[in-house]
Amino acid sequence: MRPFVWTTLTALMLAPALRAQTGSVATRYRAVADRIMNTALADSAAYHRLAVLTDRFGPRFSGTSNLERAIDWILDEMRKDGLDNVRGEPVMVPRWVRGEESAELVEPRPRRLPMLGLGGSVATPASGITAPVLVVKNFDDLARRAAEARGRIVLFNVPFTNYGETVRYRGAGAIAAARAGAVASLVRSVTPYSQQTPHTGGMGYNDSVPKIPHAAITVEDAEMLQRMQDRGERIVLRLRMSARTLPDAPSRNVVAELRGSALPDQVVVLGGHIDSWDVGQGAMDDGGGSVVSWEAVRLLKRLGLTPRRTVRVVLWTNEENGLRGGAGYRDAHVSELSNHVLAMESDAGVFAPSGFGFSGSDAAFATVREIGALLQRIGAGEVTRGGGGADIGPLAREGVPVMGLNVDGSRYFYYHHTDADTMDKLDPREMALCVATMAVMAYVVADLPEPLARR
Amino acid sequence: MRPFVWTTLTALMLAPALRAQTGSVATRYRAVADRIMNTALADSAAYHRLAVLTDRFGPRFSGTSNLERAIDWILDEMRKDGLDNVRGEPVMVPRWVRGEESAELVEPRPRRLPMLGLGGSVATPASGITAPVLVVKNFDDLARRAAEARGRIVLFNVPFTNYGETVRYRGAGAIAAARAGAVASLVRSVTPYSQQTPHTGGMGYNDSVPKIPHAAITVEDAEMLQRMQDRGERIVLRLRMSARTLPDAPSRNVVAELRGSALPDQVVVLGGHIDSWDVGQGAMDDGGGSVVSWEAVRLLKRLGLTPRRTVRVVLWTNEENGLRGGAGYRDAHVSELSNHVLAMESDAGVFAPSGFGFSGSDAAFATVREIGALLQRIGAGEVTRGGGGADIGPLAREGVPVMGLNVDGSRYFYYHHTDADTMDKLDPREMALCVATMAVMAYVVADLPEPLARR
Repeated sequence: MRPFVWTTLTALMLAPALRAQTGSVATRYRAVADRIMNTALADSAAYHRLAVLTDRFGPRFSGTSNLERAIDWILDEMRKDGLDNVRGEPVMVPRWVRGEESAELVEPRPRRLPMLGLGGSVATPASGITAPVLVVKNFDDLARRAAEARGRIVLFNVPFTNYGETVRYRGAGAIAAARAGAVASLVRSVTPYSQQTPHTGGMGYNDSVPKIPHAAITVEDAEMLQRMQDRGERIVLRLRMSARTLPDAPSRNVVAELRGSALPDQVVVLGGHIDSWDVGQGAMDDGGGSVVSWEAVRLLKRLGLTPRRTVRVVLWTNEENGLRGGAGYRDAHVSELSNHVLAMESDAGVFAPSGFGFSGSDAAFATVREIGALLQRIGAGEVTRGGGGADIGPLAREGVPVMGLNVDGSRYFYYHHTDADTMDKLDPREMALCVATMAVMAYVVADLPEPLARR
Repeated sequence: MRPFVWTTLTALMLAPALRAQTGSVATRYRAVADRIMNTALADSAAYHRLAVLTDRFGPRFSGTSNLERAIDWILDEMRKDGLDNVRGEPVMVPRWVRGEESAELVEPRPRRLPMLGLGGSVATPASGITAPVLVVKNFDDLARRAAEARGRIVLFNVPFTNYGETVRYRGAGAIAAARAGAVASLVRSVTPYSQQTPHTGGMGYNDSVPKIPHAAITVEDAEMLQRMQDRGERIVLRLRMSARTLPDAPSRNVVAELRGSALPDQVVVLGGHIDSWDVGQGAMDDGGGSVVSWEAVRLLKRLGLTPRRTVRVVLWTNEENGLRGGAGYRDAHVSELSNHVLAMESDAGVFAPSGFGFSGSDAAFATVREIGALLQRIGAGEVTRGGGGADIGPLAREGVPVMGLNVDGSRYFYYHHTDADTMDKLDPREMALCVATMAVMAYVVADLPEPLARR
């Protein structure tokens, strides 16, 4: 019991100090935070801007003109918004082209299976690969049945538990299948819910085993093939993929600022990634995070709120299949990283926000929790330990404190990397709440007398 | 207040009589009903049989060999089950063939729209129809904007309210659009929820206006086209459909019996429709209702329960695009219809059952409500006024009392007439509950001393 008692006593002793600190931020920033939140919630600007972006340009896959034209449009709009130092910072990005593709069940009965090749996969021969199928439940099951895998198409029929666990089969399935002698590999789409919806996403190879084609089929069809195998039926499938990896292409990180009034060289970064997969419209992943971050800065500008430090919105390119935007931003700004006070990313969807996950020093954590209290009114004030984002990972590794926007994630993986990642899955009010949450956090951190304490 | 008071008093005065009656059915049938329910719930036989049916034969569209081979297999299995008078009763059915089809957004940006032609639609010319799009919100909106519809493709962007209301645009949209001079028509799929999921279904023409192609696009794309129109953008779409209507083809209603011990010429019919649309697997609509009805009769047989009257399972063909099975059954059995004590259908999905909707005399309603009390234990005892099914409609019009199985319908229209109508949407336990519910009602009605009273 002693540790508990002491912890409790320590907490009780520290409480007045904490309250005073909280009182301090609350006293100084309550009015401005309320003004930011009230203004953000008064319209649906972010939702409508995202609708224009997604309707006009469609999916924004790395290496496509869709993405570059969308970036051109955003840069133009940001200039019209009156933001400072609006620019596209050059980044070379991978260029994987899906091409024509199909998966057809040949035995025991013909059926065209909805499928999506996985990003980075090699093609099949032009005539396709026609082979018997071995369905396995996980990597261990494949290891046990490795003798049966040779010459077959291996299907990983792994039900969704959580993303980190289940996505391993998308990421590394082709390596494990090739090691067992398979001629191609398939994964059950990484999702807890399906309406015959294939989900694409990234995958990898290594140099120790042959590169075999790797694609996703639907939950429905994976379960059907499992039942067929369980009944002892022979399953034959024809996979055709014409995917190609072309030379790297030029793209850009979008950068725009609200220059700080007193300490303009100190920077608070907030953003999302502007690229998407090549299906759907990338509304949720991550057009939403991009527009919400942009809108948060535009909102501060509209309100005439200029914090002491610079607030910089960054829309990273090529998060989905390369992370080149995040690395490129770090490289381009390496000399300023000691002046990066905080980097925030929204890439978990722009559903109802609950707060942030933070990675940084204990002292900085205490500060951002105090700021979180200003967001309790809209239910978005919970700041928890651990969090960030793929694009700000390179900054975190250089010592920059980072945080990721946390939202209601209950439906995120229904739509993730599918043709159904579209505007109708989002809600104007929830997006406005995300704008309010990002804007309050960015503004207050940028305006505090002291920068967030590093580790 | 008087009507209310009198109704209440009447109910109170009748209560003892009702209780006595209820007591009578409860006393006589409680034990056997419990035995039926316990046995039904002890395994997942219906679920596994439906999985074999759907996995092996795929969609069972009228006029296809899939359907006829599925019927052959069912007849064989029913004979193995030891059912009586197993037979396929010939019915000629329409034969609509979808062929290749596509819808491509041409302006303001290219996108291939997921779509399904509607059953019965004519084709486009081989080169397709390329025309500007007019989005309308409903029939009234089209009437107001009729001058703009000429030469265009009209899209009815009508959000789902309830099926009966919203399906009018699928059924009659081509007529209204053609009347306004449109060259083709599209509907937003009839569903409250979508993952880029097009829904097919039946549609009609009349002879007073030209027959124009009619197809469904997804909720997502319908909303996108609406936004584009609202922003004043020009929308051009290319529709290609090669649908054909071929001469009628032979099919069969599946009929099998448990012959009654005392009054075999008196018949209780229960069933579903064995045909489906040409997409998905028709697991929910209505392979489930078919297998549940079949399984209910097999269960009585396994238990050695032979009621006084005959229990007859009928799996109607061609419910989806012609209702020829229901009409054919009526015609083939016209001389016995006065001996049809009751006809029951399950065609609302085989989710958790709540009871039945009944159409017949007041006296018969009182009787089936008493039987419903036996099903309260499994939550399936609520018998309400009004109900039946499309296939038993022709029997109802000849005076046969009819009832439809009521189930939890919250997800039915997510999957209805789509490629996502598959086994994984169903639950073995819920299917077993449906078997129990259908079996108890059929058995008791077939065994009562008196037939259900006609109007």
